[in-house]
Amino acid sequence: MRKAVSLAALTLSLAIAGNAAAEQLSPEEQILTRQAGYSFMSWNMGKIKANLEGDFSQQQVAAAANAIAGIANSGMGALYGPGTDKDIGDVKTRVKPELFTEQEEVGKVARNFIQAANNMAEVASMAESQDDVKAAFGELGESCKACHDKFRKD
Amino acid sequence: MRKAVSLAALTLSLAIAGNAAAEQLSPEEQILTRQAGYSFMSWNMGKIKANLEGDFSQQQVAAAANAIAGIANSGMGALYGPGTDKDIGDVKTRVKPELFTEQEEVGKVARNFIQAANNMAEVASMAESQDDVKAAFGELGESCKACHDKFRKD
Repeated sequence: MRKAVSLAALTLSLAIAGNAAAEQLSPEEQILTRQAGYSFMSWNMGKIKANLEGDFSQQQVAAAANAIAGIANSGMGALYGPGTDKDIGDVKTRVKPELFTEQEEVGKVARNFIQAANNMAEVASMAESQDDVKAAFGELGESCKACHDKFRKD
Repeated sequence: MRKAVSLAALTLSLAIAGNAAAEQLSPEEQILTRQAGYSFMSWNMGKIKANLEGDFSQQQVAAAANAIAGIANSGMGALYGPGTDKDIGDVKTRVKPELFTEQEEVGKVARNFIQAANNMAEVASMAESQDDVKAAFGELGESCKACHDKFRKD
């Protein structure tokens, strides 16, 4: 029987780890934590998209953009340590091996993403209508896609 | 055989959902997304803790505090919709039923948490040493614990 590693177990594990060596996440924890960051950003991207397609709430768009920017700037590179380049039991990853070798290209897509996330947060903070954020949101989506296309398996 | 719902599957599912009805997350997706938010905050709490116990990097502490504040202010209440009060197959939750009935108390712990997260981010933005952030970090930790004690199973 394979060991199932649930997100709830990860949360508990991180809480316990926090008492000893906070930055010493296992490879499994690194994979799950980076996926948690992407999942949470994806939810917030979806909220912004819904605001662009339906009723517009500047407050909700700004909050979502701030969450994305906060996660984008949190130093997620630390979650791509040794041993996190492939599945570990039930902890699956879609990362391509290239992410661990093409440092220059990785740096470029990462910087573009962070810049687009910061710009989205700034634009959203003073947006008055959907038109004010459409371009910034489009650029942010492109910056996500650029990394997915290069460094994520389908 | 039970259906395993992995975080990777969630990410993919959210990405697809984003094309149609972004805010219409299934109960399973709501549980996994809120857990993703807590896991990512937990990682960042651990980084701040490590900075308080070892070398101090204002930049890292501020980035971690901003990630936590961004997530805290993102409207996670929307992830506690109908049907998310108990396990759904392999998607487990440790939430207590009281969270769905004690609205006044939930509002109180939620407001305290958001306030503590915002204060931590503000303090971290201009901290010069560990001493400058210790109190704010302690208060933030207490605000997490207050909710765990009341509304989370062990």
